[in-house]
Amino acid sequence: MDKDDIDDYDYPDLGPLPSIIKAEEILPCDPTADDRLYHICITAISLVVMLILAILARRTKVGDRQKGLSGLLSPVNFLDHTQHKGLAVAVFGVLLCKLWGLMVSPNPLPFTTDTENKQYWVILGLFYYPALYYPLLACGTLHNKVGYVLGSLLSWTHFSILVWQKIDCPKTPLIHKHYSLFSSLPQIACLAFLSFQYPLFLFKGFNGTGQNNASEDLSSSYYKDYVKNILQKKKPTKISTSSSETPKLPQRIIDAVKSYIYTPEEAFRFPLKLAISCVVSSITLYQVGLLLISAVVPHLQLARLGVDEDIANVLNGFKIVLSSDKHEVVRIVVHYMWCVEVCYISAMTLSGLVNLAMLMRSMVLHRSNLKGLYRGDVYNVYNCQRSIRPSRPALVCWMGYTSFTAAHICVGMIVQTLVFFLCLLVAVFLVIMPVLHGENLILFQILWGMWPFWLMILLAVLIQHITGRFCFIKKTAGTRDLDNRGSLFLLTYLLFPVNVLIGVLLAAWRMIITALFNVVHMGRMDISLLNRNVEAFDPAYRCYAHYLKIEVSQSHPVMKAFCGMLLQSMGQESNAAQRSRDAEEGIQLVNQEKKQLKVSSSKRARRHWQLLYTLVNNPSLIGTRKHFQRQAAESFVNGSLNRSAKEGSKKEAATKEAVTKEAETAASN
Amino acid sequence: MDKDDIDDYDYPDLGPLPSIIKAEEILPCDPTADDRLYHICITAISLVVMLILAILARRTKVGDRQKGLSGLLSPVNFLDHTQHKGLAVAVFGVLLCKLWGLMVSPNPLPFTTDTENKQYWVILGLFYYPALYYPLLACGTLHNKVGYVLGSLLSWTHFSILVWQKIDCPKTPLIHKHYSLFSSLPQIACLAFLSFQYPLFLFKGFNGTGQNNASEDLSSSYYKDYVKNILQKKKPTKISTSSSETPKLPQRIIDAVKSYIYTPEEAFRFPLKLAISCVVSSITLYQVGLLLISAVVPHLQLARLGVDEDIANVLNGFKIVLSSDKHEVVRIVVHYMWCVEVCYISAMTLSGLVNLAMLMRSMVLHRSNLKGLYRGDVYNVYNCQRSIRPSRPALVCWMGYTSFTAAHICVGMIVQTLVFFLCLLVAVFLVIMPVLHGENLILFQILWGMWPFWLMILLAVLIQHITGRFCFIKKTAGTRDLDNRGSLFLLTYLLFPVNVLIGVLLAAWRMIITALFNVVHMGRMDISLLNRNVEAFDPAYRCYAHYLKIEVSQSHPVMKAFCGMLLQSMGQESNAAQRSRDAEEGIQLVNQEKKQLKVSSSKRARRHWQLLYTLVNNPSLIGTRKHFQRQAAESFVNGSLNRSAKEGSKKEAATKEAVTKEAETAASN
Repeated sequence: MDKDDIDDYDYPDLGPLPSIIKAEEILPCDPTADDRLYHICITAISLVVMLILAILARRTKVGDRQKGLSGLLSPVNFLDHTQHKGLAVAVFGVLLCKLWGLMVSPNPLPFTTDTENKQYWVILGLFYYPALYYPLLACGTLHNKVGYVLGSLLSWTHFSILVWQKIDCPKTPLIHKHYSLFSSLPQIACLAFLSFQYPLFLFKGFNGTGQNNASEDLSSSYYKDYVKNILQKKKPTKISTSSSETPKLPQRIIDAVKSYIYTPEEAFRFPLKLAISCVVSSITLYQVGLLLISAVVPHLQLARLGVDEDIANVLNGFKIVLSSDKHEVVRIVVHYMWCVEVCYISAMTLSGLVNLAMLMRSMVLHRSNLKGLYRGDVYNVYNCQRSIRPSRPALVCWMGYTSFTAAHICVGMIVQTLVFFLCLLVAVFLVIMPVLHGENLILFQILWGMWPFWLMILLAVLIQHITGRFCFIKKTAGTRDLDNRGSLFLLTYLLFPVNVLIGVLLAAWRMIITALFNVVHMGRMDISLLNRNVEAFDPAYRCYAHYLKIEVSQSHPVMKAFCGMLLQSMGQESNAAQRSRDAEEGIQLVNQEKKQLKVSSSKRARRHWQLLYTLVNNPSLIGTRKHFQRQAAESFVNGSLNRSAKEGSKKEAATKEAVTKEAETAASN
Repeated sequence: MDKDDIDDYDYPDLGPLPSIIKAEEILPCDPTADDRLYHICITAISLVVMLILAILARRTKVGDRQKGLSGLLSPVNFLDHTQHKGLAVAVFGVLLCKLWGLMVSPNPLPFTTDTENKQYWVILGLFYYPALYYPLLACGTLHNKVGYVLGSLLSWTHFSILVWQKIDCPKTPLIHKHYSLFSSLPQIACLAFLSFQYPLFLFKGFNGTGQNNASEDLSSSYYKDYVKNILQKKKPTKISTSSSETPKLPQRIIDAVKSYIYTPEEAFRFPLKLAISCVVSSITLYQVGLLLISAVVPHLQLARLGVDEDIANVLNGFKIVLSSDKHEVVRIVVHYMWCVEVCYISAMTLSGLVNLAMLMRSMVLHRSNLKGLYRGDVYNVYNCQRSIRPSRPALVCWMGYTSFTAAHICVGMIVQTLVFFLCLLVAVFLVIMPVLHGENLILFQILWGMWPFWLMILLAVLIQHITGRFCFIKKTAGTRDLDNRGSLFLLTYLLFPVNVLIGVLLAAWRMIITALFNVVHMGRMDISLLNRNVEAFDPAYRCYAHYLKIEVSQSHPVMKAFCGMLLQSMGQESNAAQRSRDAEEGIQLVNQEKKQLKVSSSKRARRHWQLLYTLVNNPSLIGTRKHFQRQAAESFVNGSLNRSAKEGSKKEAATKEAVTKEAETAASN
């Protein structure tokens, strides 16, 4: 395939054509580190590691105020913004790659080569792999040197065996000779990250900084920073300074492009589940792209190289005569097939790029949605009034959110590639090739033959716009009003039939734009593909909306900051109490207690005022206040009955009222 | 086609098969009333009628306070709620039928049979037909007996010639023998309506009620009734009495169904343009349905009847062996073709019914949108803040709205029929037929073979829902909160791979539901098919939104009621003035003038208060007040800069402020 000839579109001769081209034979390859043996060993090792960790957890439970055995059973807190996200993200990445292998490979589990009952083995694999990689997560939970050592060993083992296997057998007969190698790259990357991260933890642990760094969620400074950030005065933004002008078109385009670029913000961190979703989505993107390329392109190439002069006879059978010279026919067919190949690869690349852009845009939207909900802008995010509190469907959606994102990206990308491929084929074979070769200009001939029609349409549109601009609208004293109504009505009547034809073009344009928008946004769960009144019927968006509910109600940074402050002050008080016990009794103790009382009463007042200020700035928190609950139940019912915007604003007013009530209660205390 | 055998699905023998079936030969038919001659005559008659009307208009211009020549040039006021809509609607109906004939028939214009330059004749026809039917509209404009007589004569001529032609030539070779007849039915109905309406006007005119009945828009009582209706106290609605309960599922379903049924309301009338759109849409529905049926079904039937034993050989050529007995093969093929036919007709019927339902729903939505905009609920209707005033694009959209509706219904219906047909084919040949015959159960076999997979999916979903309901959510003191977080996180991690598979199903479901929704709503312009943030990119919805702007800004019923009242009081004053001039001079005159002054000062105060009350209830009118315009220009710029919901509520506040200012001005007067 000599690509230098591409510019010469006169059906370039793509090199000498061997009469029979054989596909390169790839023999099944058995790595030295046999997969079956390796899995049996690593399963046993993982079990032992878990046992050691359990014993360790039991022993260290009381002493170091750590989570112990229950912590071991839930090594990752998904409702957390601050913990080190790397471990969880990497393990999920590995898991996803394994899941992908499970679906694609003929032997889903390494223990067996029984292809008859593949389905059962796949189902078993769906539960086996999470269990297999569980210790990798659990080792980090105890914040313990032994845990880190075990984690390092385990991740090194996984990593080295995988790399060894891939070096041993870089080519496999599956799909494409290098598919297996490329497909395991994200897995290798994730395992490498883990192999690097555990020793790092261990090293930090030896330096004594580990225990503090592996910080508890609530004692992190992030939440306090967030609260400080929202309480500090806002700088006057650019928009308000230039508010006397409407933004011009270039500015608006730049703004639109900017809204697709995610720039990290100091005072905002993604919840863990969103971070995992983003990484999982990227890996899915890579895997689907790889599969789409390696499953189709080699076959196309093979077919192209296998074209010989028999094709002329076959085409003659269908009464298609491309040329009288058989060699010429072969060249034409090869050139067409090469075009199809280029179209396919372009479609795949385009789809990948589109999905990357969508991923970025999603992240921007996630952030603005989360921030909006923290502020209590429920109406803006959901377009209706909703109560932000956990419920059964919300919880189910929250649990599945990460997985659903991956699945949607996968399906979306396949659909996109197909649609883009078809569009590109049409464009290449009906527009580009005819234009370049100057023949088969069927489409252009049809369009050109209709020039009176197009001219009429153009004129009708122009007439309507020009008369609309200059004859039918008059501006007097800043008022815009209709003018020459008689002529307007006459023109409307006379142009009725022409406008019907314009309407047909408009309807076609509507179909194209709707289909294209939906196809492009297929992989995104954070927007609904349906009309705003029936948004909730889009299962993906519904799931996202529910997911946000749980996330906001359970990990509101301001709430967390307060919980952290409460815990801290409790800790201080208990420390102070302990010190007093150590000290002598008598007057000293009495003084101490008096002081404590004083402190706590002034503290209480201060806390009330802090609470009040926070609630005013974060009305969405009010719903979680205990004495508000019963009151809220009724207003919720009202809200769901008449879901109008007015109701929304009324409810905001009710919220403000509730805040005022809070203020009164606080003031009376 | 003996339909009694349908129940017996064992490939019923559909009657004896003649060896060669000829399509019924339809000879071209020349009606006694030759189309060419008729059109030449009627064009001349129409011209004469217009001349007579013009002379008449000139003569009666001054005397009867009528619109005269300018009225003749714009016989229909599209921005009107009250005038008798029948004439305009009927003429638009006739025009649409003619346009349809123009597109379908091989001879677009009756003057020529030149098929080479068909395109030019079609373009000429697009302007000829509106001109031809123009006198039918114009005759009603003068509210004059001569006009009504001319109108009656003209419509009778059109009607009788058309009916005569159709009786002469009920069968034409075009598309289907009866297509031409059925296609002209709406046209006949519209012309019959006109032939009945003009004599009715004439009769009323002789009885002396005509002049009042052919009422001027502003003096109609409708607008006053509307204002009275909005000013009277609302009855407590049902919803507020049962507001303590959430509506149950059956109730919600009933409500949803009710929202698709249009029930006329006493105090609301559609603008003329919407009324025309509805009728035009219905006619389009009928015509497209007729074309879809008559262009395809006869060919299918013919093909079915033409199947003979050669088909077995043809199928053998493709290596498809349905049966060893050739007669059996014929029966099977005929049965399959009959199934295809049934699918097609069902799809067409379904599409027609869907579009009818959508038409009803549109009318309900039009009404609620118009009422909302009258109330000033801009945000609710448009989902963003917009200024309701005429502009160039708004005017262009307004002019084309009726035509665009027809075009969208047409395109929508074709697409729907195609999609429904494909879906029905798949359903019939992959599900229904195999189930009934008990063979070829490929789909079921595949699905059944995957039962462990489905079971796993079901179990995973159930587990998540059940644990979500009973384990992970605790209700204490009216608060709902998460419980057992550790187990929740563990379950989330373990079910990650399974949830990916569930996600794939969800994504497929999303695709289906999105495609179906968009296909079903393709013909509706009053909703956007895109996501709420990019609604305006849907050209049809954009056009509708603009259309509403013009309609509301130019024909707000409250504004019209006030204009009517103003005109009325001016009329009274001038009458009174005239009377005073007729009466003797002296004291009488002085008294009269004093009284008038008194009246006008008290009137002015009353008017100010009425104005104020109205503005408070209809804030959308404020924008059209003169001294508000400059102020509004700035706030509009601000509004377009930051288009957030908050801005919306702020702007509403600004509106209230403006109303308050009005109140102060009024009070100071």
